[in-house]
Amino acid sequence: MRLRLQTDYALRVLIYLARSDGLVRVESVAEAYDVSREHLVKVVQALARHGWVTTRAGRGGGVRLTGSAADVDVGEVVAAFEGRQGVLECVLEPETCVLEPGCRLRRKLIEAEAAFYAVLEGMTLADLVARPGPSTGLARLPVG
Amino acid sequence: MRLRLQTDYALRVLIYLARSDGLVRVESVAEAYDVSREHLVKVVQALARHGWVTTRAGRGGGVRLTGSAADVDVGEVVAAFEGRQGVLECVLEPETCVLEPGCRLRRKLIEAEAAFYAVLEGMTLADLVARPGPSTGLARLPVG
Repeated sequence: MRLRLQTDYALRVLIYLARSDGLVRVESVAEAYDVSREHLVKVVQALARHGWVTTRAGRGGGVRLTGSAADVDVGEVVAAFEGRQGVLECVLEPETCVLEPGCRLRRKLIEAEAAFYAVLEGMTLADLVARPGPSTGLARLPVG
Repeated sequence: MRLRLQTDYALRVLIYLARSDGLVRVESVAEAYDVSREHLVKVVQALARHGWVTTRAGRGGGVRLTGSAADVDVGEVVAAFEGRQGVLECVLEPETCVLEPGCRLRRKLIEAEAAFYAVLEGMTLADLVARPGPSTGLARLPVG
């Protein structure tokens, strides 16, 4: 079970932008990760279509997060790039398999996919880039 | 997120065999599902390597479950055909990404994959092919 390369790049672009200030050139992201600029451009366009990033063309242009990193749900990003297609063909198209009706696997696969996304949903881009120091636990103690 | 076609075929071959008695010709399975015999042969060979099925070559040969359907763990079959490769490259090879160390996504992806398999593990092939009648619930009531 492997996520698509586009999903991988989408998450990494978002993490890079969350750690940057202002507009970032796609070239800089491509260099940082040592990946193809062409691939990243497509990923950035898809992220822009979903509203997670905003781009500005031309000289001095680039890409930045549209809003706060806390507004970007990681589960939603993964689902958008993977598509909730069902882990096997039968999940969305039961008629493709003669085992339907009566196959219990299909229901379990739907449940398994939901369990996968349940771990990622509710986690935001801000959570991904937070760097707690060793004192994080202490900071939660009541003061005084 | 999609499982491999091989995984799909592996599960369907096992379900077919669990519903059959004795040796089954691969051609019969291929016809039943309307899929390529060549693909199924490879899948059957892989299932045999793992010990889930036993094959007999030649005239009157075929394939059957090695043991009981209750001995085949669905999660193990899926994991065997998918490989626990990690959902992104970084999961098994953290050094491929400059975000490591300090990336929290990697840990979450490992957790999400585990949640996916946790749903499938412990479910056996026998569970998949069981066909409870409407009286199943009643049958569990104490007698007398």
